[in-house]
Amino acid sequence: MSVSASSPAPRRGEPGWIMFGEMAEQPEVLRRVLAEAAPQVRQTARRIAARRPRFVLLGARGSSDHAALYAKYLIEVELGLPCGLASMSTTTAYGATPHLEDVLLITVSQSGGSPDLASSTQAARDAGAITLAVTNNPDSPLAEVSEYHIDMLAGPEKALPATKTYTAELLVLYLFVKGMRDDDGGAAAALLPDLAEEVLDRTAEVRALAGRYRFAERMVITSRGYGYPTAKEAALKLMETSYIPALAYSGADLLHGPLAMVDNISPVIAIVTEGQGGQALQPVLDRLRGRGADLVVVGPKRQVEAASGGFVLSTGRLPEALQPVLEILPLQRLAFEVSVARGQDPDSPRGLAKVTETR
Amino acid sequence: MSVSASSPAPRRGEPGWIMFGEMAEQPEVLRRVLAEAAPQVRQTARRIAARRPRFVLLGARGSSDHAALYAKYLIEVELGLPCGLASMSTTTAYGATPHLEDVLLITVSQSGGSPDLASSTQAARDAGAITLAVTNNPDSPLAEVSEYHIDMLAGPEKALPATKTYTAELLVLYLFVKGMRDDDGGAAAALLPDLAEEVLDRTAEVRALAGRYRFAERMVITSRGYGYPTAKEAALKLMETSYIPALAYSGADLLHGPLAMVDNISPVIAIVTEGQGGQALQPVLDRLRGRGADLVVVGPKRQVEAASGGFVLSTGRLPEALQPVLEILPLQRLAFEVSVARGQDPDSPRGLAKVTETR
Repeated sequence: MSVSASSPAPRRGEPGWIMFGEMAEQPEVLRRVLAEAAPQVRQTARRIAARRPRFVLLGARGSSDHAALYAKYLIEVELGLPCGLASMSTTTAYGATPHLEDVLLITVSQSGGSPDLASSTQAARDAGAITLAVTNNPDSPLAEVSEYHIDMLAGPEKALPATKTYTAELLVLYLFVKGMRDDDGGAAAALLPDLAEEVLDRTAEVRALAGRYRFAERMVITSRGYGYPTAKEAALKLMETSYIPALAYSGADLLHGPLAMVDNISPVIAIVTEGQGGQALQPVLDRLRGRGADLVVVGPKRQVEAASGGFVLSTGRLPEALQPVLEILPLQRLAFEVSVARGQDPDSPRGLAKVTETR
Repeated sequence: MSVSASSPAPRRGEPGWIMFGEMAEQPEVLRRVLAEAAPQVRQTARRIAARRPRFVLLGARGSSDHAALYAKYLIEVELGLPCGLASMSTTTAYGATPHLEDVLLITVSQSGGSPDLASSTQAARDAGAITLAVTNNPDSPLAEVSEYHIDMLAGPEKALPATKTYTAELLVLYLFVKGMRDDDGGAAAALLPDLAEEVLDRTAEVRALAGRYRFAERMVITSRGYGYPTAKEAALKLMETSYIPALAYSGADLLHGPLAMVDNISPVIAIVTEGQGGQALQPVLDRLRGRGADLVVVGPKRQVEAASGGFVLSTGRLPEALQPVLEILPLQRLAFEVSVARGQDPDSPRGLAKVTETR
């Protein structure tokens, strides 16, 4: 039931073979987004920019909610627009009637099939919002009710843990936000597919890290700025595939309480971006090292060397805002490897359905 | 080192005596907020309402961030204003220059001393936002840089886990939002202090629940709508006092992945409000029961009886939006009892400082 060190890819029918295949498709999906989706993304961005939204709301659940959080940082930093994550239940459960003139609501959903997203989007549109859906299914109810729709072109995703749709969402949202300020964004992003391929090829390194967490009872994952959505997404991947209680905190919040939980029995993974986010995380890294935490870093070489272990990301000339697309790759793979090592099937975690029917 | 069943209150100098005393003060603090803070809260609300903000941002960290999330639900439902939680790092780390005309920024902080809150509030004020700080210290840097300030009058809080400042924040924010629509809010809230006293008197019941978690390795806490901030705050209390990895999810998000982690070894606490939030949570409760989860409910009697155990909240005529002030009380006490039972000191969790100096 386990994958041997000499054969990195599970064979058809072996546990996790679907998730493994979808992770491996990511460089190709990123290329497709850049070549085929980007023109439509830019056109949509220009049209929406012309309507001058003044406030942005983002609506999503699960992995897509982490892509939405990434977009929130990007919109605040690049566009200077105030931005919030929508609480769907205020319209679906409490029947709130919001005033949404000048508001752009961006919903992000792999399937586009969650009834609560479609109904809260319809309510927002009725209340005056400009509505944009980013999905992997142009025929979905969410795409249907939204004024604008962007297809992420990731191809069918069959494994329950989202992988290729997550990175496709990040790249689409990056191109969209850049497009809102009439910046093509494609030159920097063109580096991504090859960099992603390099990262995905380093199977042995991830497997060595996975050994460290084979018997972990809990984990803490932290980052700051653009890397924070990666921390949340990595925690979700570990929970849904390996059932490890993985707690994600922004570095700032970690110091506000949960740090009490970190000691030499609570391993920590820090995602350190090369840039402002990584710099803002430095005091947290110092504090963790001071406590003797078992600290694994996904990030620059010097940060990995100063930690107990890690995975070096060579991001080259990639801007900080695009690093999240790379950062999540070794962490998706880590979740996969830990799950397989524990004798579980990452393709079909217990009790999960691919489209979640919350209302 | 442990509190015996016959003496509920720790004596001076015993572990947790400060936190216990501050929890016990809550009915008195709620009375003080209603009698002494409310007039100023209403006046401030009227002044801000007259300026017709169109968007609201909330900035906070730690427990106050959960009070801010509560306010977000309240603002969306009661005022219909789009609302977001501010990502401080976009201004403090990335130097974003946002456009904040017509935006109301509400910051919530017990100490008012976090440098990042003060500096991001200053930046928001410079960018055109109306700024309101809710703190327990009118002489704090945050109160200083904000155009409006409300003092929550909770009295000095010495224990590291915030308790009485959290419930004071909830009540101040409730009165503020009600005041924004020229509703006094006081009549419904007047029921709170006595109800809080009744809940705090039921020590033996909480201690019996605490026994259940004495050796828990992890916990999941869930709710939906107004109860969701309670779930997050309860998880933080458990983590910072007992070091239990406690994961809080909205019921909708729980079904999106983390449910894989819930089985008969991951106990679940559900906060079930009497109202729309509780109703929206019902499918999640059914699903959890279907999986055979160990489910403890804080909420109405019929929900507790259908669960493995719980704490019955008799909310009487209290509106759903005020139930969070009561719901957190048995959970604060639960964190205290589990911590003391484990031989730890809830007053001074390892490695935490009361004012967190994130920048």
